[in-house]
Amino acid sequence: MAVNGSSIWKYADKNEIGVTCVAFSGGQPKEGVDLGPEYVLKANLVEQLQDMKYNVVLTGGKVQHYKEFFPESDEPVGIIKRPRTVGIVNKILADQVYEHIKEGRLALQIGGDHSMAIGTISGVARGIKERFQQDIKVIWVDAHADINTPETTETGNIHGMPVSFLMGLVKGKFEGLDWIEPCLKPENLVYIGLRDVDKLEKQILKENKIKSFSMHEIDRYGIGQVLDMTIEHLSKGDRGESPIHVSFDIDALDPSVAGSTGTPVRGGLTFREGHYLLEALHSTGRLVALDMVELNPAIGDHCEDTIAIGCSLIRATFGESLL
Amino acid sequence: MAVNGSSIWKYADKNEIGVTCVAFSGGQPKEGVDLGPEYVLKANLVEQLQDMKYNVVLTGGKVQHYKEFFPESDEPVGIIKRPRTVGIVNKILADQVYEHIKEGRLALQIGGDHSMAIGTISGVARGIKERFQQDIKVIWVDAHADINTPETTETGNIHGMPVSFLMGLVKGKFEGLDWIEPCLKPENLVYIGLRDVDKLEKQILKENKIKSFSMHEIDRYGIGQVLDMTIEHLSKGDRGESPIHVSFDIDALDPSVAGSTGTPVRGGLTFREGHYLLEALHSTGRLVALDMVELNPAIGDHCEDTIAIGCSLIRATFGESLL
Amino acid sequence: MAVNGSSIWKYADKNEIGVTCVAFSGGQPKEGVDLGPEYVLKANLVEQLQDMKYNVVLTGGKVQHYKEFFPESDEPVGIIKRPRTVGIVNKILADQVYEHIKEGRLALQIGGDHSMAIGTISGVARGIKERFQQDIKVIWVDAHADINTPETTETGNIHGMPVSFLMGLVKGKFEGLDWIEPCLKPENLVYIGLRDVDKLEKQILKENKIKSFSMHEIDRYGIGQVLDMTIEHLSKGDRGESPIHVSFDIDALDPSVAGSTGTPVRGGLTFREGHYLLEALHSTGRLVALDMVELNPAIGDHCEDTIAIGCSLIRATFGESLL
Ligand SMILES: [Mn+2]
Ligand SMILES: [Mn+2]
Ligand SMILES: [Mn+2]
Ligand SMILES: [Mn+2]
Ligand SMILES: [Mn+2]
Ligand SMILES: [Mn+2]
Repeated sequence: MAVNGSSIWKYADKNEIGVTCVAFSGGQPKEGVDLGPEYVLKANLVEQLQDMKYNVVLTGGKVQHYKEFFPESDEPVGIIKRPRTVGIVNKILADQVYEHIKEGRLALQIGGDHSMAIGTISGVARGIKERFQQDIKVIWVDAHADINTPETTETGNIHGMPVSFLMGLVKGKFEGLDWIEPCLKPENLVYIGLRDVDKLEKQILKENKIKSFSMHEIDRYGIGQVLDMTIEHLSKGDRGESPIHVSFDIDALDPSVAGSTGTPVRGGLTFREGHYLLEALHSTGRLVALDMVELNPAIGDHCEDTIAIGCSLIRATFGESLL
Repeated sequence: MAVNGSSIWKYADKNEIGVTCVAFSGGQPKEGVDLGPEYVLKANLVEQLQDMKYNVVLTGGKVQHYKEFFPESDEPVGIIKRPRTVGIVNKILADQVYEHIKEGRLALQIGGDHSMAIGTISGVARGIKERFQQDIKVIWVDAHADINTPETTETGNIHGMPVSFLMGLVKGKFEGLDWIEPCLKPENLVYIGLRDVDKLEKQILKENKIKSFSMHEIDRYGIGQVLDMTIEHLSKGDRGESPIHVSFDIDALDPSVAGSTGTPVRGGLTFREGHYLLEALHSTGRLVALDMVELNPAIGDHCEDTIAIGCSLIRATFGESLL
Repeated sequence: MAVNGSSIWKYADKNEIGVTCVAFSGGQPKEGVDLGPEYVLKANLVEQLQDMKYNVVLTGGKVQHYKEFFPESDEPVGIIKRPRTVGIVNKILADQVYEHIKEGRLALQIGGDHSMAIGTISGVARGIKERFQQDIKVIWVDAHADINTPETTETGNIHGMPVSFLMGLVKGKFEGLDWIEPCLKPENLVYIGLRDVDKLEKQILKENKIKSFSMHEIDRYGIGQVLDMTIEHLSKGDRGESPIHVSFDIDALDPSVAGSTGTPVRGGLTFREGHYLLEALHSTGRLVALDMVELNPAIGDHCEDTIAIGCSLIRATFGESLL
């Protein structure tokens, strides 16, 4: 267990972060989200983490495009778009992230569309299971639930379905995606920031009794109490020590704060709430991995703001604090 | 009692909304507020409510202008401007709204300036009294208290006085307004969002011990607790079941959120707080009517934003929820 | 003790405010902050305070520039810039403010850069000690801690060091600043709004156990509870009656609210939180003085907004309330 500035990492052997830059946009139709990692690196994220006394290990030594693994053709399966491409990329990504966890590192993944959470969570879950014989818990910070199934999706874009694949809610096998092993139990997931959830998704959330804090609950209780309730929920039966993976979709923030993203929705988290959330999670010492996804520099007039906030949220997760 | 999606309407016989479009601006001097209802209809509010499984009954089948009832001349009475015009329009409006309540419908009124609450609250109060032998309670969401009397007003605009007329605080009778019967007791009113209250109005609020949550209290307690205290106050002595009329002045919201209104004031409710408030009120099942007023498409550069938020607040009131 | 509208001033003899306009920018490098007081006066602050039934006594009858007291030359001492200029101005300022307190007035100082707090707090502390044999307590509202010492500062600008001079944390004597007598104990200071604190400053805060509410705590508890905790901390051992000096750096507010200031930092107090804070402090009756500093009309496109908010915050401090 390594000590960093303000806290103790319960599940990392050292102050080392394995950073995987996932330049992938195949889980949705808009160009540009694959540029997210490149922009984040150009904004000096690695140097910032090094200034915080972390050793940074960049997967493959550079941004990953995975293009050499793309299948030659990838016809839709039913309504599902690019299943084989999304599948193979995530399979490789899972192995990459797994390696970092196995090495005792913290894992940071920069996206890229949110379909990549299939790979990141699969890889982290496998690594943590192996090392600690424990299931990971997941906090999914997002305007959307991303829990459509191939049956309920209206768009066919897999970035709206990663949770259902990870939770084993998908019936049958899809070519390219059939390697996925369910690794996320409904009681081990908490949503924060929801405000644009499809009708059938709401039903899935209810049926599976998934703990969800929409903006309504954040307004009702305040972000402080919501975080406390989140941690409490994820601490049932485990003395408040189980490992946590945070999957942070930048569209959880209000579009006035971070507008360069593909599916912005009004009424989101403020700059302050976003940072509070990650600072508070850092202080638990339980984090094992962070996804920072859906940064799309091709959208909006001031993408440098969204990129800067992405970096700042990452630094908060790894221990930057106000005091 | 009809079931809609997430809640039970305690005082409606069916999933039916009587919508009255009040294209009236005579309670204040600025042109354009009479265009509010037309813009809201063009933004497809009726279709949105129908998608939510409501039957919508539009008063008179179209936007109401009431011009055929305007008196030929309407000289000020003292400082009071257009008393006979405001009076006759509200008398007719009261009858229109009363009809909807009598038919067991929910009542939605879209304005128009806030003087129209004289008619809407009079009509709803009469209908509910007849059907349930109960007084209505009112939640007035507004930057302003609108409780000037003909003695205290400095402008003579009746949209700053509806509450005093409804509460019977006006001494003597005013031609055109003498039909009003006091139907609102001080203890049955709660204000939310106040931040621009005249000195003499403050005195009236104190003398009548009217429960008021200004922005100061919202900052102190948070909107969640303010709503709880509001409901508690309006539940004294009635087992938490009495009928509630919400009169929502769009200027309760911050001008940065909804700028197309005649008397904007800084430091208002956020987009999220406005929606939270109406979602929470919906969930009580006690609502009988909503006024959505002071939308003025002629003011500001982005009136479509204010109109869209008006529609979204109305949908929240009738059951649209985040989860 | 004088009664003003909503409260009783525990430490003022009369409804009289001694206003000192500190047109000084020597504690930092940016031009324009010396124009703050002139702009505030032009925005009719004096008339506004008079409308609130205060007698206003303007120090010297006009804006103070102190230029006649500037030393002919003022070479840096080590890294410290303009120590003799900052020193002499603050020495005179301390006497000016002391006079107002001695006369039983409330003291308002408009700046000007934050180095001026050396003078204002010294003067208020001396006056209050003389009249009431009590130490003053200080609430420092700021994005920054301004507690660097000559050893820790990286810029040498004294507006980043006033607290360390007032607290006696500075080793040795600096020419021009050697008149300062430590008058602020660590336990008598509370910070609110911190979010850009240097690493060595964080250490000083910890070593001296200074109570600090950063934006993280404001998000966690809400501004209402933070104020309660502030007052509680400053009431230890004194029956909640000790005198309080508020030093308000306008950069405590978010730059989107008040952008005309030299060192803006994202994620600050909202318009509403800023006002809530000062309204709540007013209601304690314990205030003796307010500094409103770092308004720089030369920065940003809409300096009139920042000036208007400065005036509005001052009015809130002296009793303007929403209800
Ligand atoms: Mn999303
Ligand atoms: Mn997502
Ligand atoms: Mn209003
Ligand atoms: Mn109104
Ligand atoms: Mn500052
Ligand atoms: Mn300062």
